[in-house]
Amino acid sequence: MKRPAMKKTLRQRLDGEYERLKKLETTFLGYPSDAEFDYSPIYRFLDFPINNVGDPFESSTYRMQTKEFEREVLGFFARLLHIEDYWGYITNGGTEGNLYGLYAAREHFPKAPVFFSEHAHYSMKKNAHVLGLKTVVVKSRPSGEIDYGDFEAKVRGVREAIVVANIGTTMMGAIDKVPRLSRILDRHKVRSYIHADAALYGMVLPFVSDVRFDFRTKINSIAISGHKFIGSPIPCGVMLARRAAVERLRTYIEYIDAHDSTLSGSRDAFTPLVFWYRIHTIGMRGFKKQVLYSVGLADFLVRELKKIGWPDVRQSYITVAFKRPSDRIVNKWELAAKGDVAHVICLPHESKAELRAFVGELAADRKG
Amino acid sequence: MKRPAMKKTLRQRLDGEYERLKKLETTFLGYPSDAEFDYSPIYRFLDFPINNVGDPFESSTYRMQTKEFEREVLGFFARLLHIEDYWGYITNGGTEGNLYGLYAAREHFPKAPVFFSEHAHYSMKKNAHVLGLKTVVVKSRPSGEIDYGDFEAKVRGVREAIVVANIGTTMMGAIDKVPRLSRILDRHKVRSYIHADAALYGMVLPFVSDVRFDFRTKINSIAISGHKFIGSPIPCGVMLARRAAVERLRTYIEYIDAHDSTLSGSRDAFTPLVFWYRIHTIGMRGFKKQVLYSVGLADFLVRELKKIGWPDVRQSYITVAFKRPSDRIVNKWELAAKGDVAHVICLPHESKAELRAFVGELAADRKG
Repeated sequence: MKRPAMKKTLRQRLDGEYERLKKLETTFLGYPSDAEFDYSPIYRFLDFPINNVGDPFESSTYRMQTKEFEREVLGFFARLLHIEDYWGYITNGGTEGNLYGLYAAREHFPKAPVFFSEHAHYSMKKNAHVLGLKTVVVKSRPSGEIDYGDFEAKVRGVREAIVVANIGTTMMGAIDKVPRLSRILDRHKVRSYIHADAALYGMVLPFVSDVRFDFRTKINSIAISGHKFIGSPIPCGVMLARRAAVERLRTYIEYIDAHDSTLSGSRDAFTPLVFWYRIHTIGMRGFKKQVLYSVGLADFLVRELKKIGWPDVRQSYITVAFKRPSDRIVNKWELAAKGDVAHVICLPHESKAELRAFVGELAADRKG
Repeated sequence: MKRPAMKKTLRQRLDGEYERLKKLETTFLGYPSDAEFDYSPIYRFLDFPINNVGDPFESSTYRMQTKEFEREVLGFFARLLHIEDYWGYITNGGTEGNLYGLYAAREHFPKAPVFFSEHAHYSMKKNAHVLGLKTVVVKSRPSGEIDYGDFEAKVRGVREAIVVANIGTTMMGAIDKVPRLSRILDRHKVRSYIHADAALYGMVLPFVSDVRFDFRTKINSIAISGHKFIGSPIPCGVMLARRAAVERLRTYIEYIDAHDSTLSGSRDAFTPLVFWYRIHTIGMRGFKKQVLYSVGLADFLVRELKKIGWPDVRQSYITVAFKRPSDRIVNKWELAAKGDVAHVICLPHESKAELRAFVGELAADRKG
């Protein structure tokens, strides 16, 4: 390993980029990416061409991998989500986890349409299109939760359905009630596969509520992002499924001799270390503390917004949605916004002082 | 950013893993992953939750990104592959690039089967299955190149075809001749979309041969891996396409309001820096030197294998295939093996001394 000489212009360019990012970190409220992390103790693993190619539970002649760590991370999530007989892997992010869930579902019900609400993540339509699945968009309530009446009207008479439950919608943090969806499906004798998109809230709810969204319900698979609540410099996620639910797909993949049971063949072996390191340095108690801190921040933000009379304030755990402010504010604070709604996701890297400054600017902007 | 205290047991576990990987690096011949790199000057960018979400050419309110660097990397590959009017992005690896190519192809010819040879990468079948495309497997010649006679027999009478050209097959490094495939398709008036899987050789051929496999031929899209010849601790790749070829898909994605023209939504913003740093510190002249060095190593290995009379030796540029040795040897040297064939990919991190030691063990093993 020889480090080639770096030209001065090159170093200056990289230094400039680093400073730009560092400055942005102080006004970073809207996106569900925790910035409070320090993984420098594991940077050294990037010295190697590590690769977790293929199934995390199968060995490979490619030994430059970290699958042992990956399996331990999956075990952590399995305990958190109440499942013993599972299969899964660490993905490149939410899209891959959701795509895998729908892919496994299609193997059960090849002709079934995918039902999801208006507030489902926009990638759901893309994933269904990739897989050649028809979609049925169900209405959402003003809170962002699925409209159960409309769901019932739309599944009535359908024999097979693939259903995506939002465990925390992107904009409002709303939660679709899985037991209620199941009861509706049962009532109409619809055979179904339920996948849960728990991108952000999969790491939030277990620590702060008794909402049942996990494998104690009838979900077959779930996708959680790693770069959201857990925090990672590289997008990643966890896809976890009942072993029985994905067995059919895995058998087929083996049958066509396509080797990898995972969607990606070559797989990032660094993000499993990111997860592992975070789990071991923070731990269950630490995660709980972080979630409670974040919910506390969200409560605080709601109070501050109400003080200035800002319209349409809604809270769901760590998500605070409100009427969209001016583009200047949206851009400066990197708020995610869609139509008339913008939101702040409260995360451990934020502080009351920062939120107070933000609300101060909102108030001033409205007057200006 | 507070670094949490790391327990002694935790540090020991990580130290152990680091040492295990370090030791493996000395006997790492079979996989096409260059290990000769040092990206430590850019590790500091992992301090931030960077994310190149969505299209590399579109701005986003998410400013914690490195899209400017990504676009420069794409520009480098566009020049290398002789295309001016292109679109593309940095992927999570070969599978995503190939999946994107087939996805774009399906938008042109929704009912067309995908033609590829027996020696195509095994992920091709999985990608076709994900997209719901039928496949036609064409015979390969003993060299690993597609059998043009069989290809002609199979496309005859077909009106529309999606064709995958292997630019360096996984096992033998064989190259399907794109102009010849095109002539066959033209002769039989088959409307087609050609995608090139140039995982490893996309970064090899431009520096060492005048084989035409790039946009000077009729290919519509190409996928190249970054963690192979270029070398990266995190799997990544480049997908590049004629703008006109992917326009239809991008328009559709916009139409269904799915936002991202890329398959992954959240995207790694670190690997663009890896590519960029490598391109700027090594440069065209450096890549050329590395390729020539690697071809020289392959020539040397062929001579050594012939000296000991090892059977079935075949070379294609930096790939040397030969009769599979014992499992002990396959495992120790991490050789990729399939059926009766094993191979060594010659890469800049290897040396003649290492290859001599390897051939010495082969000779001893056979006698033992």
